Amino acid sequence: MVKRLMFEKPLGMRDTLPFFYKQKSKARRNLSETILSYGYSFMDTPIMEYHDTVGQVSATLDQQLFKLLDQQGHTLVLRPDLTAPIARVAASQLKNSEFPLRLAYDGPVFRAQQAEGGKPAQFEQVGTELIGDHSSYGDAEVIALLVESLKQTGLDDFVITVGHIGYVKAFFNDLLGDDQETIDELLNYLYRKNYVGYKEAVKSLDAPGDKKKSLLQLLTLKGGEEIFEYSRSLARNQSCMQAVNELKQLHRLLEQYGVQQYIQFDLNLISHMDYYTGVLFEGYAPHLGAMLCNGGRYDTLLPSFQLNASATGFAIHLERLVEALNDQEDEDERMAVIVDDETHSLGIKEAKKYRQEGYAVLLQHVDQIPDIQAFQQELSQTVDLTKKGGKSE
Amino acid sequence: MVKRLMFEKPLGMRDTLPFFYKQKSKARRNLSETILSYGYSFMDTPIMEYHDTVGQVSATLDQQLFKLLDQQGHTLVLRPDLTAPIARVAASQLKNSEFPLRLAYDGPVFRAQQAEGGKPAQFEQVGTELIGDHSSYGDAEVIALLVESLKQTGLDDFVITVGHIGYVKAFFNDLLGDDQETIDELLNYLYRKNYVGYKEAVKSLDAPGDKKKSLLQLLTLKGGEEIFEYSRSLARNQSCMQAVNELKQLHRLLEQYGVQQYIQFDLNLISHMDYYTGVLFEGYAPHLGAMLCNGGRYDTLLPSFQLNASATGFAIHLERLVEALNDQEDEDERMAVIVDDETHSLGIKEAKKYRQEGYAVLLQHVDQIPDIQAFQQELSQTVDLTKKGGKSE
Repeated sequence: MVKRLMFEKPLGMRDTLPFFYKQKSKARRNLSETILSYGYSFMDTPIMEYHDTVGQVSATLDQQLFKLLDQQGHTLVLRPDLTAPIARVAASQLKNSEFPLRLAYDGPVFRAQQAEGGKPAQFEQVGTELIGDHSSYGDAEVIALLVESLKQTGLDDFVITVGHIGYVKAFFNDLLGDDQETIDELLNYLYRKNYVGYKEAVKSLDAPGDKKKSLLQLLTLKGGEEIFEYSRSLARNQSCMQAVNELKQLHRLLEQYGVQQYIQFDLNLISHMDYYTGVLFEGYAPHLGAMLCNGGRYDTLLPSFQLNASATGFAIHLERLVEALNDQEDEDERMAVIVDDETHSLGIKEAKKYRQEGYAVLLQHVDQIPDIQAFQQELSQTVDLTKKGGKSE
Repeated sequence: MVKRLMFEKPLGMRDTLPFFYKQKSKARRNLSETILSYGYSFMDTPIMEYHDTVGQVSATLDQQLFKLLDQQGHTLVLRPDLTAPIARVAASQLKNSEFPLRLAYDGPVFRAQQAEGGKPAQFEQVGTELIGDHSSYGDAEVIALLVESLKQTGLDDFVITVGHIGYVKAFFNDLLGDDQETIDELLNYLYRKNYVGYKEAVKSLDAPGDKKKSLLQLLTLKGGEEIFEYSRSLARNQSCMQAVNELKQLHRLLEQYGVQQYIQFDLNLISHMDYYTGVLFEGYAPHLGAMLCNGGRYDTLLPSFQLNASATGFAIHLERLVEALNDQEDEDERMAVIVDDETHSLGIKEAKKYRQEGYAVLLQHVDQIPDIQAFQQELSQTVDLTKKGGKSE
């Protein structure tokens, strides 16, 4: 006989206890206030979608999708992100709205984990989608809003690394022609940030020395605006130049927003194998062992829903943000009014009065408290209206 | 070949568009502020749980559970409520906290639907759990908090119907002895509020006339405090008397809270076949074709997690509450600052200034607006900083 699972949770699933919940609420509120202030409207989509509809076009690998079958035999997925579902809605129920559309979301997303490695199978994403603006002004707005939102939560030490998928792809196409296998191999190393593997792979290529040198020079295209000139000099073709020009323009606009000190450029940034189509970015905070947020331009997603529109957006991993904030403040500011049979009615009035003054007040009959001293110690303040407490006499 | 599902959603799954999202946010905020003011702490649990752990002990019928298999062969369920998961947490991670525990939650729950009947397969519950208080004071607090929370959202026309499972069960046991099949049949009619079926079933019983008369009289035990005397007179045994006494005490305490005008009593209320163990209640608003909220005392759930504690709580169906509120206000209060290349930088400053005044302001480059007149009409106010707009000259 199998032992009943009593307290266990599925792989990668976590409880959110009151202390962490409070911190999450606070961060969520700060983010959403900033996002609303930029004129974005929040919306939501269901937790479950058809695999056909949003599973296939999402940025998440198929093996990371939670799948189940419905009674009609369709494969359902637990949404791995909200970008694809929102694209579905933008291209159907909202297609007659006035574009550009500014949409935002906040909710749980799911990634199946193969092994207990500390990675969550469910986490909360707060994000935005700017749909129908294909300009650098749109890219700049999204990045500036990301920076402002993070700052509003109290986070100040973070970096947004910005790249452009067009540069890397054009660079590789020029150097490696139609050798798609090698291109994919190199893109994959960059995607995994495995630069050692990248170098090894380049060195072992059957190619002239100057080509290999160029492929290795790509790795050095990281830094501030000073890399633009160098990136131009390495540019292999018009598409590379175009990407650098876009990034230069973006940089200028981010200066107008006054957020340039949070920005770095990285021309070998690959957030996803084939999702983003232009500017893309990832955010990091020191001491956080994982990406805090990411985003970019994805111009093929909406057309896959038959809507001819460009889009860009960001998503913040809320639990990681709370970790990065590392707010240790854990003062329980609740107060208690403790009553007995005779003073219950009075207690209601007292509690109401304190609530009107802004306190969180719990009213508790003394007979139901197993350990009154310990009970009081958990609270900031106690008003004891019992006979023993003396206040009611 | 099967046509790709492009815009469809799984059975019972719904999108929450911006207008409804705003209304939900507002109701959610009002509810949670009230709940927090009563000293409750919000927490959350994962969307997925083991069937063994919370699926089996939840108040939801097995056929309504969404199930999937994990890679270890365990059956997982999408949580059908948060009461069972919170009981799991209270009995494990929180078992060393000071009791009584006041916990609250707000999140999506899932009920598999067999057919497209307009019933949602996912909806949001906002609720509370008072754990470790087995007194009428606890029951009264939970009902009073429910009333206050609903009032705080702006709802005023609603009724909370309160019953006591102990009365019905003792009543049936006395009249029908160990004929559990008939008892279950009658309970089931009451559970489904099928009073015609109940009457038919009673009439067809092979039992003396006075027993049948008593069973029919049970249906009349609905109303205000006046029913207590009548209920006593019909009481078949000490357990019935005990239940009436508890309800009388509860009524007195609800008067102290000043919420008695929202309360009705119904001694044949059965919210669930075998989940509640004492006082239970359901809330209704006129014109809403379904239950708005419910709750009650469940004293066997925590023991099933090896914690010897009584508990009571309520859950509000948030989407139904928003429906009941029927707030038609749909003013888009966002303003827009429209810019061109030359005025983008100025636009950032202007937008910032208006945001500091509390406006939600979107900044939009004019070249990306397909239809500027329609765009402006969606917004409360527009500042046009383009050359054409004249403001920048």
